[in-house]
Amino acid sequence: MAAVVSIDPRTGQAVEEVGQETTTAEVDRLCAAALAAAPDLEALGRAGRARLLRTLADALEDRREDVVAIADRETALGPVRLNGELTRTCYQLRLFAEVLDEGSYVEAAIDHAGDTPMGPRPDLRRMLVPIGPVAVFGASNFPLAFSVPGGDTASALAAGCPVIVKAHGSHPATSQLVFDILAAAGDKAGAPAGTLGLVHGVQAGADLVAHPAVRAVGFTGSVNGGRALLQIIERRPDPVPFFGELSSLNPVVVTPQAAAERGPAIGAELVGSFTLGGGQFCTKPGLAFVPAGPDGDAVVEAMAEAVRGAGAPVLLNEGISAAYGRISDDLAGAPGVEVLARGAEPDGAGFQAAPLLLATSAVELPQEVTEECFGPVSVVARYEGEAELLTALEAMPSSLTATVLRGRGETELPLAVSQQLRPRAGRLVYDAYPTGVAVSWAQHHGGPWPSTNSQHTSVGTTAIRRFLRPVTWQGAPAELLPPELTDDYRGIPRRIDGVLELPR
Amino acid sequence: MAAVVSIDPRTGQAVEEVGQETTTAEVDRLCAAALAAAPDLEALGRAGRARLLRTLADALEDRREDVVAIADRETALGPVRLNGELTRTCYQLRLFAEVLDEGSYVEAAIDHAGDTPMGPRPDLRRMLVPIGPVAVFGASNFPLAFSVPGGDTASALAAGCPVIVKAHGSHPATSQLVFDILAAAGDKAGAPAGTLGLVHGVQAGADLVAHPAVRAVGFTGSVNGGRALLQIIERRPDPVPFFGELSSLNPVVVTPQAAAERGPAIGAELVGSFTLGGGQFCTKPGLAFVPAGPDGDAVVEAMAEAVRGAGAPVLLNEGISAAYGRISDDLAGAPGVEVLARGAEPDGAGFQAAPLLLATSAVELPQEVTEECFGPVSVVARYEGEAELLTALEAMPSSLTATVLRGRGETELPLAVSQQLRPRAGRLVYDAYPTGVAVSWAQHHGGPWPSTNSQHTSVGTTAIRRFLRPVTWQGAPAELLPPELTDDYRGIPRRIDGVLELPR
Repeated sequence: MAAVVSIDPRTGQAVEEVGQETTTAEVDRLCAAALAAAPDLEALGRAGRARLLRTLADALEDRREDVVAIADRETALGPVRLNGELTRTCYQLRLFAEVLDEGSYVEAAIDHAGDTPMGPRPDLRRMLVPIGPVAVFGASNFPLAFSVPGGDTASALAAGCPVIVKAHGSHPATSQLVFDILAAAGDKAGAPAGTLGLVHGVQAGADLVAHPAVRAVGFTGSVNGGRALLQIIERRPDPVPFFGELSSLNPVVVTPQAAAERGPAIGAELVGSFTLGGGQFCTKPGLAFVPAGPDGDAVVEAMAEAVRGAGAPVLLNEGISAAYGRISDDLAGAPGVEVLARGAEPDGAGFQAAPLLLATSAVELPQEVTEECFGPVSVVARYEGEAELLTALEAMPSSLTATVLRGRGETELPLAVSQQLRPRAGRLVYDAYPTGVAVSWAQHHGGPWPSTNSQHTSVGTTAIRRFLRPVTWQGAPAELLPPELTDDYRGIPRRIDGVLELPR
Repeated sequence: MAAVVSIDPRTGQAVEEVGQETTTAEVDRLCAAALAAAPDLEALGRAGRARLLRTLADALEDRREDVVAIADRETALGPVRLNGELTRTCYQLRLFAEVLDEGSYVEAAIDHAGDTPMGPRPDLRRMLVPIGPVAVFGASNFPLAFSVPGGDTASALAAGCPVIVKAHGSHPATSQLVFDILAAAGDKAGAPAGTLGLVHGVQAGADLVAHPAVRAVGFTGSVNGGRALLQIIERRPDPVPFFGELSSLNPVVVTPQAAAERGPAIGAELVGSFTLGGGQFCTKPGLAFVPAGPDGDAVVEAMAEAVRGAGAPVLLNEGISAAYGRISDDLAGAPGVEVLARGAEPDGAGFQAAPLLLATSAVELPQEVTEECFGPVSVVARYEGEAELLTALEAMPSSLTATVLRGRGETELPLAVSQQLRPRAGRLVYDAYPTGVAVSWAQHHGGPWPSTNSQHTSVGTTAIRRFLRPVTWQGAPAELLPPELTDDYRGIPRRIDGVLELPR
């Protein structure tokens, strides 16, 4: 087995050997432990798991300095961003504790026995139960919030599912440290042994997805990575649910009125959004539609100026850096595409990349500009008039987000744009930029393929639904029912004979 | 293109040419029409679609006699069953109208802008929207309730999705008649052109699943059929959600106490359940665990007697009939399996099948008896004591249902059995038989692979969730929001800043 090595992207050099890649036998042992832990984790109940999640959040915060330092060394994302990401990660864990306290996520429903037009109906009681052990694939670009202690892990644990994380190769030391913190805190808080596991290495990830004990997979990564895991799942005797967050272009439309009112500000903000985190957000705006003419020119000039002033960010790893070079070159060389501006050139060390602003016409959008390119590049597509804009939007692939920047009080064109983009997006953003993804009850981070392969979110409270499945009890004696489905239980919202009732 | 022929299973003879198999060009035309209809169907709103569903139910009932007659000719299921199935089908349509009236299925949630531990949060509003045109595959065994006017169609239309049904080859005339009734009633009720489509033929089904306009697929059929459609979906540039209801063994456990208290009654009832509809229910109990000893013998003797007195049902089509002969022969010849009783032998006409009761030991269950065999056969597995029973249950595949028949007031063994079976079942049935599936709010008809490939139900109100996807509006002006997400709307349950509120 190969060694697992932590690389500093600022230098491109290995700085630490974290351990060995996880063997197939060890994956098997972790999966067996997770399967054995599942009934006890469920038996902790909603209150017990809420306590567990809060304990994990506290433990992470207690080690904030160490975690941020090692994550910064492995990702070069900087302490400000990483401190924010750790805060968000802890918030997620605590928010899922609230979800457990509130309890409507189990969708409890009771239909008492009675007569119907089809004859007598038996007593039926339905709620969601944990799906079983979950494999979570850490993402390259969020070493905390979408990795070992991230939203997939938080929502799966909340659901009552043991979790085995496949550490991303970009940040194995961060993954191992954070795992050790969570595992120790979990032990102390009474989590059953086997509740959390960690594996390193590509083969270990494949073994995990193929393992009979694993009942669902959460993944944030590339379309190719997602397709590869889907193929492993299809070869299982029992294909299991796969929840992939894959690829997203995130188109932005600047209306003529918006360009007229605040073109230069929009231009600067757009560059801020597409270069944030080195352009390595899944919600990075990869294509902006800007009107032709002087108002649009002002947007584009402000963008070009901001890009020319931008430093060369350090990308997360060698693969992303190489792909950025290759794909951004292809983009720049595509027919009808011109280079508007370049940021600082890499000074040679590590995985730096030059920010890049390209332009093309909305009338003949090259295929290349409708595909996601990870890194600090974005394309401006100039349009002449509404009809041209709306036609161009038909070529948009599905994305996590679609953004409209509109004028004060403007609704007509934004409505037409929204109607074109809603079938192609999970989140419609107005007068803001897509790169911030708040964690909340009404958030949705998803969308049709290629943004995800599912109808579920990977951010926000409803992410828990991915790791639950319904069970109906028919004619069950009260002693055999979960507490939430007994007649006298009043702690959570329930649907009784078709009528939703609040707790009392 | 080949002719589409209606065959009478009682004789095996073709009695009517229904038309021609649908061409690829015609599938394309239907899909384009469905895509064009989608925005208008959504724009009907919840109230408009509720009216549409009620109109469709009324139209079907108006033609009850014709529909039942032609369905009986094509399926040999008999007028009593088919009248019941039509009643259920109309009830389903009306129940989804109630779901629309009630409105919580859209999962409306509003998070107002505010401060959080991560900084300011924008205004976020989430609800579920229609996924787009849906392909529905009619099932062989329910020519109405799981076919053209069935639960998939009802729930997809309720969701706001145009539907194109692939008629099952066992009942093309029924499918065509019912489609014509629905399409005419839909037109009259103001459904947009393209809301409903029908295709005939295997190639047309494949074309449908591959078509870019189709955004989700609902399927009830075999594992092999489901796998074939999944492969088509995987080859799409944009794989879409697939909801398959595939295969189910439906194990039943008779506890020693139940056998002692009412063994002979249980035996007769079990045979009634596994021979119902010719043993062609997806919830047919295919394997029953019965205690060794005299009380269990009484169960088995009553089963054998009932089977010996059972007539030979007519199966739905030649393929099912041939598979039944082959698979039931394999089952009967499996190591450790003995034939306990046979029902009436076929008299030679059509697709008749002899009911068959087999026995084996729970200790060494042959692989063959853990797989579904469509048709009037069931296996009794005798067990000696609890430990042997609980160990045997570990070999159970996942099923739509798992049933426990227990003694009066008995809870200890039923609890242990339930704990073994809950991870392997979608519905836990106590002291009843799995073959009735009530349509209601708390029903669930699903389960882990191979019973389904998804975490959703295909029966009951929550079936609508399959054909919806979440969208979040961020910072949207009120004019651009769906009515359900505006501040003043009060018609449905909504979650406001994390708190569930009932309509007022």
